[in-house]
Amino acid sequence: MTIKLYCFGESGNSYKAALALQLSGLDWEPVYVDFFNGETRTPEYRNAVNELGEAPVLVDGDFKLSQSGAIQAYISDKSGKFGGTTQAGKYEVLRWVLWDNHKLSSQAGMTRFLMNFLPEQHCNPDVIAFSQGRLKAAYQVLNDHLEGRDWIVGDGVTNADLSCCGYLYYPEPFGFDRAQWPHIDAWLMRLSEQPGWKHPYDLMPGNPSDRA
Amino acid sequence: MTIKLYCFGESGNSYKAALALQLSGLDWEPVYVDFFNGETRTPEYRNAVNELGEAPVLVDGDFKLSQSGAIQAYISDKSGKFGGTTQAGKYEVLRWVLWDNHKLSSQAGMTRFLMNFLPEQHCNPDVIAFSQGRLKAAYQVLNDHLEGRDWIVGDGVTNADLSCCGYLYYPEPFGFDRAQWPHIDAWLMRLSEQPGWKHPYDLMPGNPSDRA
Repeated sequence: MTIKLYCFGESGNSYKAALALQLSGLDWEPVYVDFFNGETRTPEYRNAVNELGEAPVLVDGDFKLSQSGAIQAYISDKSGKFGGTTQAGKYEVLRWVLWDNHKLSSQAGMTRFLMNFLPEQHCNPDVIAFSQGRLKAAYQVLNDHLEGRDWIVGDGVTNADLSCCGYLYYPEPFGFDRAQWPHIDAWLMRLSEQPGWKHPYDLMPGNPSDRA
Repeated sequence: MTIKLYCFGESGNSYKAALALQLSGLDWEPVYVDFFNGETRTPEYRNAVNELGEAPVLVDGDFKLSQSGAIQAYISDKSGKFGGTTQAGKYEVLRWVLWDNHKLSSQAGMTRFLMNFLPEQHCNPDVIAFSQGRLKAAYQVLNDHLEGRDWIVGDGVTNADLSCCGYLYYPEPFGFDRAQWPHIDAWLMRLSEQPGWKHPYDLMPGNPSDRA
């Protein structure tokens, strides 16, 4: 049975789940969610896919799951990959996935959305500056952690990497300048060289040029 | 061996871990972190406890772990409690813990900090209003989900409850008016009636009156 992932290209949270599926070798296919035309707010989506109107949502036969970090855990249980190779490693992976959800992707996704996908009059420059300040602290933490390491936890790719990279390959500006953070830059390059890796706009349907 | 939790009363993220320990029946004790006098920024704390300067941190013999959601997972593995009673339940618990980290506690903690623990001139009212708007959407999601249910996942207390409640018992104003959200209110009451439950300022050392 082919796993379906409800997702769209602009969503870094979708990308985290799509990239985990893609690199896991599991059989999967994306199902396009027309977020920018309000599909996640329709009763059809809320009834059939996700009652909170979230994306991504994984559907594997009768089983449905949202939240990228939970989907990644499901993919790890099913494929045996990316969940950490020791018990201590397993907690470290979860720790970084939570850190990402708390400090990095949540802020990056919101800031990128405000700066690129909302009409200008809805974007308060103080809110953007405040978020960018918090994000800078998060980039610093990640950059320092990656000094002298290939991957965030242990010796190979884990969900920690697949979570933290969620918004960092996108071209739209939100204050992340990859060249400023050499260890993040090298790690993103390393991850992009993994067999099967694709850029979010190549891995999932939908991108800003569709609306241009 | 008594588990140690580095924590402080004002920290809702610490409370999530402390409450899980408290209700699990495991042997534990709090170790006070003097956050407001900068202890987490000292080299001693960063070297001995946590390199990112985080709290809470759990120490169980030689094992150390940060991020409240990861600590909760460790407590569940060790005690057999709060992690979900079925495989599907396990993913649902993780899903709500991630949702909380992404949408609820991260915003609530930051907004409460800005409004109560920072000098007024550092608080931008637009930032606070923006955060409160996002939080309102999160309260709505949680309130709707709890309609007709005793607990967030399944038939008993899980880490989903122990995560989402993290900031909701505190007296300091941050825009959460419990009376406005009847299902959240009833659930917080229900949780507070569990044997062993304590309010954050009773469960952990440190509270704002120490600095008054």
